[in-house]
Amino acid sequence: MMSRLAPRWPAWLFWWRAACAQGVSAQQRTWAGASRIPEPGGPWGATGTSPLVRRGSSSASSGAPEVTLTRERYSVRRLPFSVVSEDDLAALERIVPGGVITDPEELEAPNVDWLRTVRGSSKVLLRPRTSQEVAHILRYCHERNLAVSPQGGNTGMVGGSTPVFDEIIVSTALMNQIVSFHNVSGVLVCQAGCVLEELSRYVEERGFVMPLDLGAKGSCHIGGNVATNAGGLRFLRYGSLRGTVLGLEVVLAEGTILNCLTSLRKDNTGYDLKQLFIGSEGTLGVITAVSILCPPKPSAVNVAFLGCPGFAEVLQTFCTCRGMLGEILSAFEFMDAECVKLVGRHLRLACPVQESPFYVLIETSGSGAGHDAEKLSGFLEQVLGSGLVTDGTLAADQRRAKMLWALRERITEALSRDGYVYKYDLSLPLDRLYDLVSDLRARLGLHAKHVVGYGHLGDGNLHLNVTAEAFSPSLLGTLEPYVYEWVARQRGSVSAEHGLGFKKKDVLGYSKPPEALQLMQQLKALLDPKGILNPYKTLPTRT
Amino acid sequence: MMSRLAPRWPAWLFWWRAACAQGVSAQQRTWAGASRIPEPGGPWGATGTSPLVRRGSSSASSGAPEVTLTRERYSVRRLPFSVVSEDDLAALERIVPGGVITDPEELEAPNVDWLRTVRGSSKVLLRPRTSQEVAHILRYCHERNLAVSPQGGNTGMVGGSTPVFDEIIVSTALMNQIVSFHNVSGVLVCQAGCVLEELSRYVEERGFVMPLDLGAKGSCHIGGNVATNAGGLRFLRYGSLRGTVLGLEVVLAEGTILNCLTSLRKDNTGYDLKQLFIGSEGTLGVITAVSILCPPKPSAVNVAFLGCPGFAEVLQTFCTCRGMLGEILSAFEFMDAECVKLVGRHLRLACPVQESPFYVLIETSGSGAGHDAEKLSGFLEQVLGSGLVTDGTLAADQRRAKMLWALRERITEALSRDGYVYKYDLSLPLDRLYDLVSDLRARLGLHAKHVVGYGHLGDGNLHLNVTAEAFSPSLLGTLEPYVYEWVARQRGSVSAEHGLGFKKKDVLGYSKPPEALQLMQQLKALLDPKGILNPYKTLPTRT
Repeated sequence: MMSRLAPRWPAWLFWWRAACAQGVSAQQRTWAGASRIPEPGGPWGATGTSPLVRRGSSSASSGAPEVTLTRERYSVRRLPFSVVSEDDLAALERIVPGGVITDPEELEAPNVDWLRTVRGSSKVLLRPRTSQEVAHILRYCHERNLAVSPQGGNTGMVGGSTPVFDEIIVSTALMNQIVSFHNVSGVLVCQAGCVLEELSRYVEERGFVMPLDLGAKGSCHIGGNVATNAGGLRFLRYGSLRGTVLGLEVVLAEGTILNCLTSLRKDNTGYDLKQLFIGSEGTLGVITAVSILCPPKPSAVNVAFLGCPGFAEVLQTFCTCRGMLGEILSAFEFMDAECVKLVGRHLRLACPVQESPFYVLIETSGSGAGHDAEKLSGFLEQVLGSGLVTDGTLAADQRRAKMLWALRERITEALSRDGYVYKYDLSLPLDRLYDLVSDLRARLGLHAKHVVGYGHLGDGNLHLNVTAEAFSPSLLGTLEPYVYEWVARQRGSVSAEHGLGFKKKDVLGYSKPPEALQLMQQLKALLDPKGILNPYKTLPTRT
Repeated sequence: MMSRLAPRWPAWLFWWRAACAQGVSAQQRTWAGASRIPEPGGPWGATGTSPLVRRGSSSASSGAPEVTLTRERYSVRRLPFSVVSEDDLAALERIVPGGVITDPEELEAPNVDWLRTVRGSSKVLLRPRTSQEVAHILRYCHERNLAVSPQGGNTGMVGGSTPVFDEIIVSTALMNQIVSFHNVSGVLVCQAGCVLEELSRYVEERGFVMPLDLGAKGSCHIGGNVATNAGGLRFLRYGSLRGTVLGLEVVLAEGTILNCLTSLRKDNTGYDLKQLFIGSEGTLGVITAVSILCPPKPSAVNVAFLGCPGFAEVLQTFCTCRGMLGEILSAFEFMDAECVKLVGRHLRLACPVQESPFYVLIETSGSGAGHDAEKLSGFLEQVLGSGLVTDGTLAADQRRAKMLWALRERITEALSRDGYVYKYDLSLPLDRLYDLVSDLRARLGLHAKHVVGYGHLGDGNLHLNVTAEAFSPSLLGTLEPYVYEWVARQRGSVSAEHGLGFKKKDVLGYSKPPEALQLMQQLKALLDPKGILNPYKTLPTRT
């Protein structure tokens, strides 16, 4: 496809610094060649080919020291739920025959989040296969006042999918059946435990794509994606799950199955109840099945990696790009020079373009390869000619496209190798997006190793990361609440796509007014009066 | 733009039957030339140029006989709200100085829906200018147990925006200020009473478009659009308001202002409260301001009108179209032969292609005129060559594009001239979409004048209309609950985009299970414990 266009492209577009290929070690090549490289600011792909994380494992590195129990590290008090008894185990065994796990070794992984920052002490994990089983479980737990922690792929970033104390873990792992797929409408209906990557493969074979894609796709469950309102890499093009999820089946706290599993694009009959459960992190109900609209698979995909002289030029490049690439633009990611330096230092991935203060990665996805390449060419000539971009490269094939994506997607991994990482996932107005990074750099001076900014620029989503040799309460005190207050002044979001879970629940107030918080608490009380569903998550601790 | 492509287009594409132009009367030309022609299955544009409806009028035809009072025509009982007293009027005058309307003549229009099927007997209309005034109004009404009917442009199809008894009408007409527009992100923030067409003009001057467009845009308010989760003509391309509305400001029943007016594309801090109010038709709160994401304005728009030999071919044309036009497809509408005959008979609009059992209207919107025309040409060659399409025409300029759109958009008007119209707005699985029309035709035989089907095929949305000489309870009995039961068997929606309002509230159960209905009623009780907000709407009458 690209060859026929070659005469129209500047020579540099196909230039690929030798060091780039040479700098990739055997292991990294395997890793970068995995079907999806690490999530932007998220967990690893954890596909079969990844040497870093085995599927099903919830920890970012094996053999690491034991994670401190959440109840010991954080100031949190157990609520007066019942404790699971032998009678309870027998009753649960009758509800989920063969699906009651109590072996301490098997319970290790699901008690710990993949970042290894929180650790519960659950003694029971349940593996239901049907919504009816989930309903029976919740009915029983509700009656017995037993707390429940729903868990999908356990790939969350904010400790939302692991128990805090001894909550019963209800895993969707065995609820992994595809219910239906309609090859005209593109509507997929499946159980909540289907792994995103497997769904992607399934619909791609039928000429469609999933409307979301993220690094954790090899492990994450679609039910968890919906419960956390996951953003990810296709958000710019296909929008929020609030638009693409057509229906849900949810089990409510007291065991009622709420079937809103419609496959219709339009349905204005009453309140749209499914929206209550999208993004509520399992605190209002347990999602057991999902109906989702899959867009047609684009036949042509291009990836360009460009260097920009300043953040103002990054923004102007974005505007130009949106105007000239229009409907084929599918990703506009940015990263600062520090990010690329860290990826080079820790992962030996060389930057394929001249050193620049900022870099952007642009992806196009369209239905006409020739047309798309022409549009991209016109855009690149424009931004190069006007000085918005000083250097760039274009992937000539899928392998190189993945290598370019790796520069963006492996930043998280590089950061984790740089030391202790303080992580922030923020939404900010585009024109102030990078100011916080500069401010923090000045504020922290030599107290931090690195202060870096990158993220989904097209969505206004900044991943701000600060690295230091080790965790330090004084550095944390310099960062917080400063970062949250800064974001609040810009009316930004203190959690753009990661949710609040356990770790961020107390900063909700920086992005939402007290009236909103009060209504959220009323909704929680209405839907889960005993508070058994994923307690200690999402909403601030009541004082 | 088209001339450079001419050699590649088949000659027929530019053929335009002389009769088509000749058949348009002077009045109709003016009308078709209005900035937006009538809504698909909805109210007229009501722009300044429309001879049919004056802006601000709520009735479809002036000088028509008086509409029967809702309380007389329907079996509905007034709930025990207070009655507005002189003291109340004085208090309201202090809250909204100069904004209390009690003149019976001025109250005539806002008491009647535009279809002239329901009529309330409200004695008071309030015109607040700020959210604070709305808050004070609701706080007062809540304390006094006075019912309230929020009203935007009063262009709804289901009697949702007019009072049923003597509810106080709270109009957003004077809340029409644009708060901000960001020319990089495309985020518009405005008061709820802004007229959609004026917002469209505002953002188009800045290189963006509103993510929704509908026939009523000359009158409808953005707050009403959001409150009813309006669908319309751009749904296929830009998706649901649930994805494009970024934030809302809402006044709750007891007068609290809930400010969730974020301008961020991503915000996962707690439950997404704004979703409660989108589509809840003013029964849970009064929307006072909206933040909405506007997509960039496409630089090239094409419209084609094609004839298909059968509904199977319509569906195959849709699949082919989606594959070959991909990301530039912005509308795929269909209509049956009866629709086009009625438009010809009653409005003298001639069909520009050979008589066919079905017709489709395809619109493309893209960023590259040449590319788009090439894609469209390839698609047209394919569908003509394979026999999916037997004849077609392509608009060569904007005027002709509007004439093609008129054939689709004026169907509602043609139907209303055919007699009494029984209207259904349904979502159905694509492959069964037209079966209901055929079934009904056989079932009704000579009892109906015409049974027609048309709609937003790309969204699975059928507008099913049955005309008869006059209203007949026996014909109604043949139609209902037959139609609703038919739709329920297909797990369709009995209200795709029009909502439930007053007229469809009791058919909710055909599309939602009892558990959903119960939760909706709990939400209503939580948010509006006295039930003062838009009573007798959305939720079924409690028996």
